[in-house]
Amino acid sequence: MRQNFDVKGGPQLGRNNLPRLRDAMKSMGLDVFYVPHEDEYHNEYLPASNDRLTWVSGFTGSAGAAMILLDSAVVFADGRYTLQVRDQTDPDLFKIEGLPDPGPFGWIAKQSLKGKTVGYDPRLMTPDDLDKLASAAAKAGASLKAVDANPIDTAWDDRPAEPLAPVVPQPLEHAGVDATEKREAIAQALKADGADAAVITSPASVAWAFNIRGGDVACSPLPLSRAILNDDGSADLFIDPRKTSDALRKHLGNTVTLRPIDELDSALASLKGKTVSLDPSLASAWFFKAVEDAGAKILRQPDPALLPKACKNATEIAGTQAAHIRDGAALTRFLHWLATDAQSGEVTEIDAALKLESLREDLGDLNDLSFETISGAGPHGALPHYRVSSASNLKLARGTLYLVDSGGQYLDGTTDVTRTVPIGEPSADMKRHYTLVLKGHISLAAVRFPEGTTGTHLDVLARHSLWQAGLDYGHGTGHGVGVYLGVHEGPQRIAKPWNAIPLSPGMIVSNEPGFYREGQYGIRIENLQFVTEPAAIEGGEIEMLGFENLTWAPLARDLIALDLLTPAEREWVDTYHADVLEKIGPLVDGEVSDWLTAQCTPL
Amino acid sequence: MRQNFDVKGGPQLGRNNLPRLRDAMKSMGLDVFYVPHEDEYHNEYLPASNDRLTWVSGFTGSAGAAMILLDSAVVFADGRYTLQVRDQTDPDLFKIEGLPDPGPFGWIAKQSLKGKTVGYDPRLMTPDDLDKLASAAAKAGASLKAVDANPIDTAWDDRPAEPLAPVVPQPLEHAGVDATEKREAIAQALKADGADAAVITSPASVAWAFNIRGGDVACSPLPLSRAILNDDGSADLFIDPRKTSDALRKHLGNTVTLRPIDELDSALASLKGKTVSLDPSLASAWFFKAVEDAGAKILRQPDPALLPKACKNATEIAGTQAAHIRDGAALTRFLHWLATDAQSGEVTEIDAALKLESLREDLGDLNDLSFETISGAGPHGALPHYRVSSASNLKLARGTLYLVDSGGQYLDGTTDVTRTVPIGEPSADMKRHYTLVLKGHISLAAVRFPEGTTGTHLDVLARHSLWQAGLDYGHGTGHGVGVYLGVHEGPQRIAKPWNAIPLSPGMIVSNEPGFYREGQYGIRIENLQFVTEPAAIEGGEIEMLGFENLTWAPLARDLIALDLLTPAEREWVDTYHADVLEKIGPLVDGEVSDWLTAQCTPL
Repeated sequence: MRQNFDVKGGPQLGRNNLPRLRDAMKSMGLDVFYVPHEDEYHNEYLPASNDRLTWVSGFTGSAGAAMILLDSAVVFADGRYTLQVRDQTDPDLFKIEGLPDPGPFGWIAKQSLKGKTVGYDPRLMTPDDLDKLASAAAKAGASLKAVDANPIDTAWDDRPAEPLAPVVPQPLEHAGVDATEKREAIAQALKADGADAAVITSPASVAWAFNIRGGDVACSPLPLSRAILNDDGSADLFIDPRKTSDALRKHLGNTVTLRPIDELDSALASLKGKTVSLDPSLASAWFFKAVEDAGAKILRQPDPALLPKACKNATEIAGTQAAHIRDGAALTRFLHWLATDAQSGEVTEIDAALKLESLREDLGDLNDLSFETISGAGPHGALPHYRVSSASNLKLARGTLYLVDSGGQYLDGTTDVTRTVPIGEPSADMKRHYTLVLKGHISLAAVRFPEGTTGTHLDVLARHSLWQAGLDYGHGTGHGVGVYLGVHEGPQRIAKPWNAIPLSPGMIVSNEPGFYREGQYGIRIENLQFVTEPAAIEGGEIEMLGFENLTWAPLARDLIALDLLTPAEREWVDTYHADVLEKIGPLVDGEVSDWLTAQCTPL
Repeated sequence: MRQNFDVKGGPQLGRNNLPRLRDAMKSMGLDVFYVPHEDEYHNEYLPASNDRLTWVSGFTGSAGAAMILLDSAVVFADGRYTLQVRDQTDPDLFKIEGLPDPGPFGWIAKQSLKGKTVGYDPRLMTPDDLDKLASAAAKAGASLKAVDANPIDTAWDDRPAEPLAPVVPQPLEHAGVDATEKREAIAQALKADGADAAVITSPASVAWAFNIRGGDVACSPLPLSRAILNDDGSADLFIDPRKTSDALRKHLGNTVTLRPIDELDSALASLKGKTVSLDPSLASAWFFKAVEDAGAKILRQPDPALLPKACKNATEIAGTQAAHIRDGAALTRFLHWLATDAQSGEVTEIDAALKLESLREDLGDLNDLSFETISGAGPHGALPHYRVSSASNLKLARGTLYLVDSGGQYLDGTTDVTRTVPIGEPSADMKRHYTLVLKGHISLAAVRFPEGTTGTHLDVLARHSLWQAGLDYGHGTGHGVGVYLGVHEGPQRIAKPWNAIPLSPGMIVSNEPGFYREGQYGIRIENLQFVTEPAAIEGGEIEMLGFENLTWAPLARDLIALDLLTPAEREWVDTYHADVLEKIGPLVDGEVSDWLTAQCTPL
């Protein structure tokens, strides 16, 4: 079982640990200590040993922060976590404030801290955040102090060991391009930008640039590691030696020097006189200071692996397509189960999540889930980031909707798919809302667009039908997805906030509009799709990019209000279902096959 | 006659004036001099006395720049002006380079200018542009020198006198809100931001904040003037005394000190110790230096009049509606003329522009055109910014399209409208392209959207039908429009480049998608519309903003390919035409009335 539905976090953690942290702060001369959710790797998932915010407060949200003073403390959480943070923290110990307003920096700026010292761990903050903290501390009259050792780590007696999963080669048959070739292209780019080297701090970029994978964090096969790429194509790769092997050394070849990760400091110190590329949105302030202190010149620019990693090569696309078809068979079996056994009204959210997991497991090549399954019955479906626990576990009651957002990690690709299905008879409103969401999904799936178009330009297509009906959803429409890497990756994104990265051939994005009726039900329809090469359109003048679909599993035809679809939209659904049947049909049999055939007949 | 179709600019200007400028540069010790198109007021239209780029080069484009060296010179122009700049400049004197790449700064950065001095006029450049010039000059090895007196002004013997149009009150019945009240609101905003005063450098903002109008530049009733608004609601207004009157003094009241514009320098110098709001996108580097030198602290923020000016009050909306109906009657008479007399094939672009002007003049209250009419026959229609001259004047030939983009300045409002009509029988392609443009126009006209939505989010709606057909247009979709002020105003904009300003109630924007088939024809459909208050939608959960149409004149029904319209789009056209008939019908008679009725029958 890859999922754990225990209740996590909780006020007892703060009661136990806050006094310990304060003792450590006092011994270091700190009056205030800033605790962000992020760890030193800035990954989406933290190893247990780095989950410092939870340790000190009990709050387990995927974003947040705390400001710890000697006689008070504040936890900051965004709107998604308003209820959860209240449940998980002790009100006698923690005040709760919002994110992004006031946020920890806005809050600190309004305090009166004359003569006090605010401590922070420079390994956990980007330089931008450090600037904000510095300016806020100045407003409060406080001085700022970077800690060498995080007082939480000092105070945390039973801190879990750091993860030591073996780092393994990602075979060329899945990576598509030899790592030497990838680093050679980056070296050319560095030269063109006048940089001698790039310090790569993001484990996902390291994984891509060396064709390696690890297992140090949940749900994404990341090796916690760093690298320095030089403008001659050579590289230093820093990994804990306990995670390496002869096979890895052989795979890396002779242009890569494999070094213990505790040599990173001295390697940075030896960059004196060089021009070094560093990404201010990925690398922490600690790296900026280390490179500056070394006497190197910093070129602030995006991680050079970010864009080539986002634009998948033909092998990666083919692998992702294959993984999606296998994954689609598991999902189809699950949807059939939802349409039959799970209509009883007695199945729980955890039952459903485990059923889906076991069907993916049955495929035989599942390496991990790509994220914790969102298994939301009725009102829980209206919480876009809901995670079921044994305490929240609802039954899939008749007359409600069930929303399931899940994915798998396979050696050849990463999946992420959401389906919403009726349990019992759906209401007219449910059907109307589902159909409006579907119209947005289709519009974004079918759009053609010129070079230079970004996700911000396209976002409205997924919302337009909802907007015209006075509805919207409070999350982005699409995120980048890796190939046997993170299920959420940049730099492209389809969302309202400005994203300047043009959608480019090979980029994989999700297409996941939704609608959430608070306290009643949630609807989301998510397929992954990738950006296709510019191609001519008959009668047109400009070659247009577009999307090709990756995810294959039937839509909830009982939730479609036919009268709300245009003929072109209806045709899109019929074509999609015909393709589902063609690709998934051969992989299922018996009752499932019959059911799939029925689901895929034209509307 | 308000328009002049003489051939403007041309190589002779450069031949005459370039040597004079070089003499002046030498006497000032300059090796290079940067000549932007902008003048010290950064308005769209320049008075003849400030048209320095044309004087030195002969190029008359509405954007551009020149770099003048002692033995060579370069003119920079964007894609719209590629042909024009070649015609208007002497190739022996000027090389031509592109905008924005390399642009004057990119170009200078690549030159070898060790020991040379690059001069610039700090009155003509924003601080951002000055930063770019400084960094480019440093790369070229040159030093930078701000000139006190522009060497062009020194060398320009027959420089026209600066304009001295009287400044007059804009009556409250049109302005809607008393100017004292407007400045009181700005004073409150300044206080909230911790500013003691705002230096207002933009004549449009001055006009709005004091309810005054002038006539110093073409097509927009701007007073060339500056102001300082204080956080107690008092203000200093700087105008050449020859433009003022007792009536103006009385209108301004006793919270405004009317001062000669040559006292501006000393007024800025007296800001010592104050915190002063300055807009880095509107105020030139000269202002930043003057305020810094005075010992004041600069708060870089948007001009505080910009957003309240953009969000029109109810009186301004009502005035604009009335102006548009009158203007629509003139345009309707013109469209009837185009559909009858102008079908001969013998009418010229200038004939048409003058006919339309005279019909607007007949209304009796036209104060000015709001911009030079774009009167484009056949291939000229494919140049989105075409201006007809006696040298370019084409006939409206049969079997072509004619595109006319024009507007008027009335005391109660400013209009801007584009119609495209067939001369003779349109081809199937013409109809298909017109209909695709119309579908985009309708989508943007009919959209409902939540608070926080910006023009960048909506832009794709106007392009979507074209994109799906492999087509696009190379300009923005919508610009802000003033009320008896500039026909192009910010801060909102509907276009691909990121604009962060939410579309807010009362903002007037154009809706003008187009399609341009090079060498053959151009299509553009432009109405103005304003943003409506958030309102509930039946069955919806969020109050949505929307647009209400302002422009009333029939569309070209002969260009509509009915089979490309959805039922909802067809209904939109029929409703629009019914409204046109209701509003414009009573203002026209005889043949025009009959024609209008026919044009407005349901499709």
